[in-house]
Amino acid sequence: MTRFALTLEFDGTPFQGLQRQKHGPSVQQSVEQAICAVTGEDVTLHSAGRTDSGVHAMAMRSHVDIEKDLSPFRLAEALNAKLRPEPVAVTACDVKPDDWHARFSCTGRSYIYKILNRRAPLTLDRNRAWHIRPELDARAMQRAAQALVGLHDFTTFRSAHCQSDSPVKTLDRLDVRREGDWVLVETAARSFLHHQVRSMVGCLALVGMGRWDEARLADALAARNRQELGLNAPPHGLYFVTADYPDEQKIFKESIE
Amino acid sequence: MTRFALTLEFDGTPFQGLQRQKHGPSVQQSVEQAICAVTGEDVTLHSAGRTDSGVHAMAMRSHVDIEKDLSPFRLAEALNAKLRPEPVAVTACDVKPDDWHARFSCTGRSYIYKILNRRAPLTLDRNRAWHIRPELDARAMQRAAQALVGLHDFTTFRSAHCQSDSPVKTLDRLDVRREGDWVLVETAARSFLHHQVRSMVGCLALVGMGRWDEARLADALAARNRQELGLNAPPHGLYFVTADYPDEQKIFKESIE
Repeated sequence: MTRFALTLEFDGTPFQGLQRQKHGPSVQQSVEQAICAVTGEDVTLHSAGRTDSGVHAMAMRSHVDIEKDLSPFRLAEALNAKLRPEPVAVTACDVKPDDWHARFSCTGRSYIYKILNRRAPLTLDRNRAWHIRPELDARAMQRAAQALVGLHDFTTFRSAHCQSDSPVKTLDRLDVRREGDWVLVETAARSFLHHQVRSMVGCLALVGMGRWDEARLADALAARNRQELGLNAPPHGLYFVTADYPDEQKIFKESIE
Repeated sequence: MTRFALTLEFDGTPFQGLQRQKHGPSVQQSVEQAICAVTGEDVTLHSAGRTDSGVHAMAMRSHVDIEKDLSPFRLAEALNAKLRPEPVAVTACDVKPDDWHARFSCTGRSYIYKILNRRAPLTLDRNRAWHIRPELDARAMQRAAQALVGLHDFTTFRSAHCQSDSPVKTLDRLDVRREGDWVLVETAARSFLHHQVRSMVGCLALVGMGRWDEARLADALAARNRQELGLNAPPHGLYFVTADYPDEQKIFKESIE
């Protein structure tokens, strides 16, 4: 048995989400079926994050245990061949120790949320960004966002379906910047609650539109009440970007020293 | 009668091209139908470039003459409403003098060609880039490209269907650079022959793969023979980026002085 770490890129549009669902296609189901087609093995894919329907991934990290003797290169090539034409690709594949776990070994996750802020509808970026017509004040959003950074009870920004034991999380980073017509929100934490990024971005958009002032966002956080949530941003602007692992950070640190 | 300049962004995937075709949908037909729906007028859209089926535009420039009294803002908003759900958007709209012509007043055009150079298939960038698996030597491509810059007879890089009077053109810029897995080709000229960008990029890709050396590209140019073309790059990696006009360059120069 070999444990393989897979890096997955996917367009979330046609999927009900990353995780296997009773009804509707999921990324997990597609990848597990591809692995079965390559190896004849029924496996379970474990992943660093659980993305909702429509949410994309630039580099989701997953792992799977396989009996068949295959090199990481051959496995990635075979999976990519079997995954076609679905918009899921294995962009990297490595052998890991048996105690390496894509979800439980992960010590940091980051997301980017893309907003295209202009009057005209989306063409090339349809299903790839949230379209907001009123002009957003990205600097006000950035200032307001800092109230959410740090250790807080994020109940206000948590889905009713969230399975996390505690609503208390440490948000390491929440940065908003404008690039032309784009307003980009980047965020990082050890872990996130269900819908947390979309809920934070939704409220930041209200600040950007001038419908909420900066204090209102801090008040919503302090209320620890889902009823105080202003707006949940749609899924199609959200991208899972990176997952961090201690063994890989060590390699990185060694390589730059 | 008012002459309006429209800036169009479009996803070329579902279209037979920008120009109206006897068979199949075109961007021109969609925009002209939207104008008719808004104004009741049968108009002809004139554009800076003629893009092929599958080629995209970030900022195509076009013009149209309209009798109905409308502000540029109202016209853009109404057209965007009527164009839905087609992936064409009016991102800017201005009133121009009657002698301003989107095609004939245009003094410069630029394109970007996007190559995603990796083993894994495309997901988020499907229909938005050319997927090349063998590793490309972008520096060799950049060196080779410089042989094409300047005044040349581009017969080798010209489609048999090209309607231009002469194959002699001045290429102002052809630059290749790598950004991670991306290899980006940017090019600018007063005007281009039909298929010129795709033909140049196709041959540069052969250089990048080591199948052509740099001298071979210069030889292909010197041959002035379409039979010497190595490869025509597919349309879906190509984006029309900008069109230059003397009146707008003047405004730009004044604003930075």
